Amino acid sequence: MVQDQDNIIGAKQAKTKFSAKNPFFCCVISHTATSEVPGLTVAGANPDLVKYTSPADAEFLHYGYCRCIPGVPATPDGKPTPAVITKAALELAEIPFLVVDAGTKVKPDIPCVSLGVKPGGNIAQENAMDVSDTKRALEYGHALGRQLARSSDLVVIGESIPGGTTTALAVLSALGVDAQFKVSSSMPENPHELKNKVVQSAFARARISTADGTPALEAVSLVGDPMMPTVAGITAGALEAGGAKVMLAGGTQMAAVLAVMKGLSIPLANLCMGTTVYVAKDSSADLAGLIKQVSPEVPVLACDLQLEKSSKPGLQAFARGFVKEGVGAGGSSIAAMLKTNASGKKMLAAIERVYERSIEKKSLT
Amino acid sequence: MVQDQDNIIGAKQAKTKFSAKNPFFCCVISHTATSEVPGLTVAGANPDLVKYTSPADAEFLHYGYCRCIPGVPATPDGKPTPAVITKAALELAEIPFLVVDAGTKVKPDIPCVSLGVKPGGNIAQENAMDVSDTKRALEYGHALGRQLARSSDLVVIGESIPGGTTTALAVLSALGVDAQFKVSSSMPENPHELKNKVVQSAFARARISTADGTPALEAVSLVGDPMMPTVAGITAGALEAGGAKVMLAGGTQMAAVLAVMKGLSIPLANLCMGTTVYVAKDSSADLAGLIKQVSPEVPVLACDLQLEKSSKPGLQAFARGFVKEGVGAGGSSIAAMLKTNASGKKMLAAIERVYERSIEKKSLT
Repeated sequence: MVQDQDNIIGAKQAKTKFSAKNPFFCCVISHTATSEVPGLTVAGANPDLVKYTSPADAEFLHYGYCRCIPGVPATPDGKPTPAVITKAALELAEIPFLVVDAGTKVKPDIPCVSLGVKPGGNIAQENAMDVSDTKRALEYGHALGRQLARSSDLVVIGESIPGGTTTALAVLSALGVDAQFKVSSSMPENPHELKNKVVQSAFARARISTADGTPALEAVSLVGDPMMPTVAGITAGALEAGGAKVMLAGGTQMAAVLAVMKGLSIPLANLCMGTTVYVAKDSSADLAGLIKQVSPEVPVLACDLQLEKSSKPGLQAFARGFVKEGVGAGGSSIAAMLKTNASGKKMLAAIERVYERSIEKKSLT
Repeated sequence: MVQDQDNIIGAKQAKTKFSAKNPFFCCVISHTATSEVPGLTVAGANPDLVKYTSPADAEFLHYGYCRCIPGVPATPDGKPTPAVITKAALELAEIPFLVVDAGTKVKPDIPCVSLGVKPGGNIAQENAMDVSDTKRALEYGHALGRQLARSSDLVVIGESIPGGTTTALAVLSALGVDAQFKVSSSMPENPHELKNKVVQSAFARARISTADGTPALEAVSLVGDPMMPTVAGITAGALEAGGAKVMLAGGTQMAAVLAVMKGLSIPLANLCMGTTVYVAKDSSADLAGLIKQVSPEVPVLACDLQLEKSSKPGLQAFARGFVKEGVGAGGSSIAAMLKTNASGKKMLAAIERVYERSIEKKSLT
């Protein structure tokens, strides 16, 4: 069966340590005004649409279509949201899920857990979060994580926050991690210089020096985003409840969450990361290098969704460095394959079915 | 084992049909301004505190203490909230739970699913809900119920809405059920005449005649409360997802939800009611008579928590007709006993521990 799943890097390890008989998927959606810096993200067909991306992703998971926008979230040149992959994984394996609204700018038209925190500020100009919001996100996340762990053996936590790799770079750097040129991007041409510039402005504004150690919650409040303390809190609560393990489903943004948790002395045993090979093997970033610095003991599982073999141009693009990951696409796919023993081929077929039902149907109308 | 559980009326039936290997508890909290009619409810130490009761109950479930009020919700003469029982049941059996905010007036300080509906109006004077809110509660509930059913074999749904038996009387009557003098009360002296008067005013205002059939959603919007379509939606979604069964945890308020679901042609197989004997045997009400009229095929399980044997005066009071039920106390206790095979004695001990930790500690400070 592991043979069938050679498309998961680290599948044997996953099978041994991270069972997923009844995984639960939790998707944290959020906004940071940092995403409004021109050129930083393509998670939206145009800059005005970026704030709709995370709520639209959440709506897509629930209904198979979006309500706050026509069609689905896409890049300006039409590459679709990775929520297509997540939706397919959740459906294939009948994985229950819950959306957590941690500071969206546009509210999704779905039932979701609201943490009552404000959207994140543009870190180049203002603090990311009020300290009270950071603490509430952490505390509420913790209370929620405890409950999710009681109904699941593997809590998989994904995110949708456009611009999140820039705040990830900022928080990683503030916590002393050498992260420049290492965070990933939704674009094939990773705008590292622009990200570095934004972080530089943020550090000057917030008087952060990479030489000094910044306390984790302070780093998040000054230059992070609301997704980070929320995911850290859910993870901490789930691990504390005992029994369940946790998978952080995402790319380099989750490395920042890992660094925050380490800073908060949250034990990282029983935790893994799950992502796509498109992030894991991204030559314009260095996920492995980040994890090695932050917490080398946390295993990184990566699934090869074989999207280059797809007949759908929008899916092929993922394999060519567009979008790559997001909405927990990689982690939820790994959980689905672990739960059902589905082959990579079956998984790809499921993704294509969702693509046909949503993207292709939409472009016809 | 069934012998150990003779304190559940219908335990054999429950064991056969309603397994609870991994139950999930969902608590719907809500407000109806109908509760502000003087003399209708004692779910609050004084009338000004009634709006805090349901959020405080939810906070108690999460933290073991309340945040929006000092102490715990209580009647004017100090009888504590049934959330003490629910908390004990959830802890004893490690049952995961989620709170759904369906129109509270005071927001609880916890992570909860918010449905974005307004508190219910005072039905004597105004419509209970906008039709759009009723539909959203039903739709969001449905989407949520689908997910809960995927992670559980028994979704137990409780409620906390002061004044809810009066809106229950109104909706039952509007749907053609003979409910006068049959709904329960948090007081030993059930204020039937006052309830009848409020419903009479509501019917005159909304031009409802018991002779005509009122469509279910219209009845809820005119003279119901936001808890009803929410619970109906969660139930419908959970049952539709397949696999899971549903227990409506509560007294005569849940009979109204049952009537609404019947009116919406939601199939009621795989559904049961779970309550306390204090409601089931309440001589001032007639739960069995209501169920018999609405849907005799739905089994009613009732647990005898043997609170008359407790050394705690606040718990003894439940057995003497005060409070009786609420916050899914009866249903969550049944689920806990089914899951753990705990005896009634063990259950009582667990309840007393929570009572000591919260009520007695609080009264010392």
